[in-house]
Amino acid sequence: MKAAKRILVIHGPNLNLLGEREPGIYGITTMEEINRKCIDWGEENNVQVECFQSNSEGAILDKMQQERKSVQGMVLNAGAYTHYSYALRDCIAAISVPVVEVHLSNPQAREEFRQKSVIAPVVAGSVSGLGPNGYVLALEGLKKIIEKK
Amino acid sequence: MKAAKRILVIHGPNLNLLGEREPGIYGITTMEEINRKCIDWGEENNVQVECFQSNSEGAILDKMQQERKSVQGMVLNAGAYTHYSYALRDCIAAISVPVVEVHLSNPQAREEFRQKSVIAPVVAGSVSGLGPNGYVLALEGLKKIIEKK
Amino acid sequence: MKAAKRILVIHGPNLNLLGEREPGIYGITTMEEINRKCIDWGEENNVQVECFQSNSEGAILDKMQQERKSVQGMVLNAGAYTHYSYALRDCIAAISVPVVEVHLSNPQAREEFRQKSVIAPVVAGSVSGLGPNGYVLALEGLKKIIEKK
Amino acid sequence: MKAAKRILVIHGPNLNLLGEREPGIYGITTMEEINRKCIDWGEENNVQVECFQSNSEGAILDKMQQERKSVQGMVLNAGAYTHYSYALRDCIAAISVPVVEVHLSNPQAREEFRQKSVIAPVVAGSVSGLGPNGYVLALEGLKKIIEKK
Amino acid sequence: MKAAKRILVIHGPNLNLLGEREPGIYGITTMEEINRKCIDWGEENNVQVECFQSNSEGAILDKMQQERKSVQGMVLNAGAYTHYSYALRDCIAAISVPVVEVHLSNPQAREEFRQKSVIAPVVAGSVSGLGPNGYVLALEGLKKIIEKK
Amino acid sequence: MKAAKRILVIHGPNLNLLGEREPGIYGITTMEEINRKCIDWGEENNVQVECFQSNSEGAILDKMQQERKSVQGMVLNAGAYTHYSYALRDCIAAISVPVVEVHLSNPQAREEFRQKSVIAPVVAGSVSGLGPNGYVLALEGLKKIIEKK
Amino acid sequence: MKAAKRILVIHGPNLNLLGEREPGIYGITTMEEINRKCIDWGEENNVQVECFQSNSEGAILDKMQQERKSVQGMVLNAGAYTHYSYALRDCIAAISVPVVEVHLSNPQAREEFRQKSVIAPVVAGSVSGLGPNGYVLALEGLKKIIEKK
Amino acid sequence: MKAAKRILVIHGPNLNLLGEREPGIYGITTMEEINRKCIDWGEENNVQVECFQSNSEGAILDKMQQERKSVQGMVLNAGAYTHYSYALRDCIAAISVPVVEVHLSNPQAREEFRQKSVIAPVVAGSVSGLGPNGYVLALEGLKKIIEKK
Amino acid sequence: MKAAKRILVIHGPNLNLLGEREPGIYGITTMEEINRKCIDWGEENNVQVECFQSNSEGAILDKMQQERKSVQGMVLNAGAYTHYSYALRDCIAAISVPVVEVHLSNPQAREEFRQKSVIAPVVAGSVSGLGPNGYVLALEGLKKIIEKK
Amino acid sequence: MKAAKRILVIHGPNLNLLGEREPGIYGITTMEEINRKCIDWGEENNVQVECFQSNSEGAILDKMQQERKSVQGMVLNAGAYTHYSYALRDCIAAISVPVVEVHLSNPQAREEFRQKSVIAPVVAGSVSGLGPNGYVLALEGLKKIIEKK
Amino acid sequence: MKAAKRILVIHGPNLNLLGEREPGIYGITTMEEINRKCIDWGEENNVQVECFQSNSEGAILDKMQQERKSVQGMVLNAGAYTHYSYALRDCIAAISVPVVEVHLSNPQAREEFRQKSVIAPVVAGSVSGLGPNGYVLALEGLKKIIEKK
Amino acid sequence: MKAAKRILVIHGPNLNLLGEREPGIYGITTMEEINRKCIDWGEENNVQVECFQSNSEGAILDKMQQERKSVQGMVLNAGAYTHYSYALRDCIAAISVPVVEVHLSNPQAREEFRQKSVIAPVVAGSVSGLGPNGYVLALEGLKKIIEKK
Repeated sequence: MKAAKRILVIHGPNLNLLGEREPGIYGITTMEEINRKCIDWGEENNVQVECFQSNSEGAILDKMQQERKSVQGMVLNAGAYTHYSYALRDCIAAISVPVVEVHLSNPQAREEFRQKSVIAPVVAGSVSGLGPNGYVLALEGLKKIIEKK
Repeated sequence: MKAAKRILVIHGPNLNLLGEREPGIYGITTMEEINRKCIDWGEENNVQVECFQSNSEGAILDKMQQERKSVQGMVLNAGAYTHYSYALRDCIAAISVPVVEVHLSNPQAREEFRQKSVIAPVVAGSVSGLGPNGYVLALEGLKKIIEKK
Repeated sequence: MKAAKRILVIHGPNLNLLGEREPGIYGITTMEEINRKCIDWGEENNVQVECFQSNSEGAILDKMQQERKSVQGMVLNAGAYTHYSYALRDCIAAISVPVVEVHLSNPQAREEFRQKSVIAPVVAGSVSGLGPNGYVLALEGLKKIIEKK
Repeated sequence: MKAAKRILVIHGPNLNLLGEREPGIYGITTMEEINRKCIDWGEENNVQVECFQSNSEGAILDKMQQERKSVQGMVLNAGAYTHYSYALRDCIAAISVPVVEVHLSNPQAREEFRQKSVIAPVVAGSVSGLGPNGYVLALEGLKKIIEKK
Repeated sequence: MKAAKRILVIHGPNLNLLGEREPGIYGITTMEEINRKCIDWGEENNVQVECFQSNSEGAILDKMQQERKSVQGMVLNAGAYTHYSYALRDCIAAISVPVVEVHLSNPQAREEFRQKSVIAPVVAGSVSGLGPNGYVLALEGLKKIIEKK
Repeated sequence: MKAAKRILVIHGPNLNLLGEREPGIYGITTMEEINRKCIDWGEENNVQVECFQSNSEGAILDKMQQERKSVQGMVLNAGAYTHYSYALRDCIAAISVPVVEVHLSNPQAREEFRQKSVIAPVVAGSVSGLGPNGYVLALEGLKKIIEKK
Repeated sequence: MKAAKRILVIHGPNLNLLGEREPGIYGITTMEEINRKCIDWGEENNVQVECFQSNSEGAILDKMQQERKSVQGMVLNAGAYTHYSYALRDCIAAISVPVVEVHLSNPQAREEFRQKSVIAPVVAGSVSGLGPNGYVLALEGLKKIIEKK
Repeated sequence: MKAAKRILVIHGPNLNLLGEREPGIYGITTMEEINRKCIDWGEENNVQVECFQSNSEGAILDKMQQERKSVQGMVLNAGAYTHYSYALRDCIAAISVPVVEVHLSNPQAREEFRQKSVIAPVVAGSVSGLGPNGYVLALEGLKKIIEKK
Repeated sequence: MKAAKRILVIHGPNLNLLGEREPGIYGITTMEEINRKCIDWGEENNVQVECFQSNSEGAILDKMQQERKSVQGMVLNAGAYTHYSYALRDCIAAISVPVVEVHLSNPQAREEFRQKSVIAPVVAGSVSGLGPNGYVLALEGLKKIIEKK
Repeated sequence: MKAAKRILVIHGPNLNLLGEREPGIYGITTMEEINRKCIDWGEENNVQVECFQSNSEGAILDKMQQERKSVQGMVLNAGAYTHYSYALRDCIAAISVPVVEVHLSNPQAREEFRQKSVIAPVVAGSVSGLGPNGYVLALEGLKKIIEKK
Repeated sequence: MKAAKRILVIHGPNLNLLGEREPGIYGITTMEEINRKCIDWGEENNVQVECFQSNSEGAILDKMQQERKSVQGMVLNAGAYTHYSYALRDCIAAISVPVVEVHLSNPQAREEFRQKSVIAPVVAGSVSGLGPNGYVLALEGLKKIIEKK
Repeated sequence: MKAAKRILVIHGPNLNLLGEREPGIYGITTMEEINRKCIDWGEENNVQVECFQSNSEGAILDKMQQERKSVQGMVLNAGAYTHYSYALRDCIAAISVPVVEVHLSNPQAREEFRQKSVIAPVVAGSVSGLGPNGYVLALEGLKKIIEKK
């Protein structure tokens, strides 16, 4: 049976290096393993989960625009774009699907520039500091939002 | 059988007025209903969940200090104290149990003073903007952290 | 005949020392004398005035929450909490009774930290720099607001 | 019998448009009606109240200087000049009559630029957010100050 | 046949010196030549254009208030008042006719204090850096706005 | 007869969603309709107008560099890149064709981050808040600049 | 014999109250006495000195513009306008005569807002804190500048 | 023989956890051991030393007010309240006994928020970074102050 | 004999226009000439130098990630991305090869926004203001770092 | 006859290079020529003028302290120390002779760091932007101050 | 018997004027008297105390470097250098002896620039506001630190 | 044969302690070893290199002024003076020889106060973070600049 819902999980710049990248901060789990967790969660919850990564701000905007009518929600780890991509902020405000922001580490506990999320004012909610499991929590939170609509 | 784990859920100032208080922002769910959700989650997950609310910064500190050895983790919605209680920050840093911060609304989407969490640098993680369900997600995230220790 | 209206006058931290405390700034009138003026005004105006003082932020919140349905308005001199108690701000926003802020001295003419009132954005109005008489003016202003509702 | 005291009520820029101007913020009472209230209050209290409005900073300074010896106090709603007219501030400091600042709305609850009053450090007191009645309260407060001298 | 529409073009302080004043920045066209262009445009477009200049903030406010019911729109080059006249801002917000802001040079390319327009938040639109022709473009833009009403 | 002049109209990120995107702010006109207006204007004015949109900062830079010798001017709505793309600023400064900045809404009347245009210091002029018609005004302004060279 | 040179001495807002106004700061010399000193100096130095005072920013601008071709220099005590009148700054930059700024007290030793002179970047020089004698020094300094031209 | 002098030593929030709390920063000495040192010092110096700890801002204010006439001086480690409790500042200013501030670690060498002491402007002196011995030094300094009165 | 070492030289946005672009600031040497210098240096020093340019932030990230294991070091002139690309910063921190930052002009001597390098905290070193020769110096500095490993 | 008064003229760092140093800003007059002017003025006015220059902050402090009882006033061009030497400020406040600050150029018209004088709050007055003649004016101003004592 | 320990007491700029310098702030005790107290304390405590004063930043650095191996600790009143001498900070960090900062008055209770100590982050501790006795307390605190090593 | 060129290498405060001073940051190479490297480089490149160190700002200024005509360039590691010595900045601007700034560590990767170089706007170029080898690179860069003149 075809999944009733579809959610897009988006990874921003440098997240493809997870596992290898500053493991003291980001842990040793790879992006592929996180994607696997998300897809597994989708299968358990009858939600079709698609995963996407790009280092390019423009490509992320393109993807979000293209999928805006084919998914009911998005989970977004915008990586460093979190802190300055007002284009991403505008995109989230422009499309009508709810977006939940997720961060592996806790940006508020790190450098000052990471303490501001320019997308936070337009997302439905956010989960941070809870590691790879945070993606699953974000998916669960998003599912509740979708079901309420 | 006695629950294997114990988690304290703490509500800060004015959260006892939930349901009645600015429902456009905080929703119509009461604190008692949120506590019920948390305790139910605890029963399903074999975790003893205790709930506590106080308007007093000092009383919250007292409670967190007293329970620091009897629980394995805490979920904390510090309300407005989130934005200025460095005493709360010091308390979280002083005790050795992991604390997950939760907010019903998304503080980053509101007034500027709400965009800074003085406790964020010392919490294990945070969940915000996801409504009453955010408490359950925080409990789940916390449980994962406790299990990893 | 029972008074038709009821107003709560709240004094924040250190205001119990009025008369003795920095008289060059705060004058020589004691808090008890101010309370007397307020109660006298109430008797002349058929309003039951109750006065309350606490040094504790939490106790002030408790009191305001408890009385939120038994009074039609509050006059609040939050003392130093004026400048940082976002919990007090949230409380005023949470309860449905109008609150008029009062200050004996003119905070804008003093140290920089006194020039910001974190509660000002949520109060119905404010009176400052007019000494003990400012309480009476606040009561009059509040009475007009209550009568218009 | 000639009034024993004389008070000048000054309205700054755009206040002549009251009633018509952004009624959601400033209400529907016109400046003429406020002036009537002030004069009525004067008659009841044996105070000769004169009202003056100008859009011109210089004309307000001229008026305040000219009347500085013929009145015992002034009530001033400086409108937008409140936020940047250091010339007005210097004028209030230069003349020896007490000035009470009044605002119909609560500037602290509005745009950031309205949250600073450059005249506040030199006025005797201020009343804000209490609508047209605020003028009457300011007059009462001012009368008390004059009587104490 | 009488013009169907009437637009007021307002020049703020020092604009009467155009042509002579810092020609490297403001060009060699005089204010009279700009006025001529505006009036010519009006004749071609069946709009009665009136031009006004004053160095006085108060006189500009007076003029705008007086004409607020006799014109359908205003083109305003507020000169230096652009950067600090909150009274002008309040006036634009108070009157109900659309105002288009115009600047000969590009303020954002000059000193820091010129990079903030305190009237920008309340104008219908703005044209800058396009020289004397900017007035004509502002008139055209304003005409479109008036026609849509 | 071949057009004597050529102008490039560039739309930045998310402008392809115009009409659908936050219509309360950006209106209901689509980007295609704006492009049509621009091309129509070109035909009436003997100017060949080419339109281009991309969500990618790099692609916009590539396009501007490639066309820098084939056009006499550019009209640029940089969308959110307006507020942080110093690369775009450098590109405008690097190429020798005049660029006129255009915004549908008035950024100065919106969020604080929109009140700074990092490209403003290097553009020839700007038009904002005048809706789709602003593109036509920008084209007219640009044409005047090109003709003066 | 007619004086070879002509200098305009301008006093800004509230300076007409000198002698009476905050004598602890501004001294007991009146403006008339200062003017007398300036004129006396002129007679000794074969310079025709004219003195002018206004509380109105616009009137000061008008005067400076009118006299820009009839004097060889101006001495300006802009009073509080020193700190915010960008219109005055633009006027000084627009006219071609040298202007020397003078202050009776030392603004840098007073409130923070007095520590910034918005006209300083465009004046030829400035003298402050040297009391009424500062006007004479400013005249002498200005004379030297005029003679060098 | 009864001690001639009486000093109150006050510990603010979280200081009851000393020894256990972040020992890398605060050391391994417990609050009880510090109190013992203080009392021992008192016995050697004929001063009656009383020690008090509370996590509650209000309770500290209550204590300081109550003891203001029964002690000749206070040693205060306000913990995190050092950085935001303007109520504590007001209390110190309100009572007439000298207060010496003490910190175990050197707040200026730690996080930025710890670099500001809001009580510093009203204390008689301060000792920081010298560990538990700092309390003894504070007592000695305070004793000298008391003896000079 | 195959080169023992491999270094990637990366040019960010607009650097492909060198020689033509603002020659007063960036000089008349083209990017191709700089690349030639770098490759020549490589040949003299037995280092294989590869040069890469892109206007796209994403493409630069892709390239740096792809080459992170095939080179021993990178020389990076990030152009305007230097000042805001936290994604680039994260990338440098994520890969394990040393990166030396180079700038043709001296950013600290230019506009304020150029005075902050967001990548500086994670690079091995930087060379600026020394023109095209700076690339050669950066290569030499990098070679020393690689040899020490 | 021995001069009745003695004044010390102090030149701070780099002023010994006057004439050669950035003549576009500081002019072509050498320090020796300025000293000659000052001494000449002294001879005409029966004041013994001594001139001193040092590049060393400490040496300037030493000199000012040594001469504090042998002179009645000092003229000080502190050069760059003007902007950061709080030691110089403390020295001026510590000695009891009046000090007049002088600057050849107008620091307020130059880089931002030059717009703050840390010594201004403690000097008797200041003269700036009037070139070498400014020293003579400062001497005259200082003489008037000394005579009034 | 030769003293077992050696401590250097350093006085920064203007402290040689103590007793004469602003006695309302710094008291009437001279530097020589303070030195005598320190030496007396040393004799009582078997510590050889050397005292040094200089107005020169460089000379203080030279002295601290020279003595870095001959003393076990230093007491430093850096005077105004406290607030800007990063060279002093670097010196304290460079040498391996503990340094205790001392101030006669309480800098946090004075001008804003005195509220920042640039050396505080690298000193072992600090004592302020306790007058000449503060030096003795600093010596005692330092002795404890030395003994613990 | 006499060297054709002469370069002065200047080390600022505390650099004489290199090797011993915070080796984790500055490495174990001593200043003498760096000087040896510089002189060796000079001998290889036919440049006479002189090395100079002082802890005194004034002495560095004296040296730079004295040598301004005897050398063709200077390499300057100003140590902590980099961050606040505007006197040094003025000196570099005053002399006509090119100066290259060098830092052993990367100041931008350290404390915030190190992220601003007040001399950067006036130096010819800078090299940082490349250790002792950075001096050699600075010499090479400087030699190229000298040869181009």
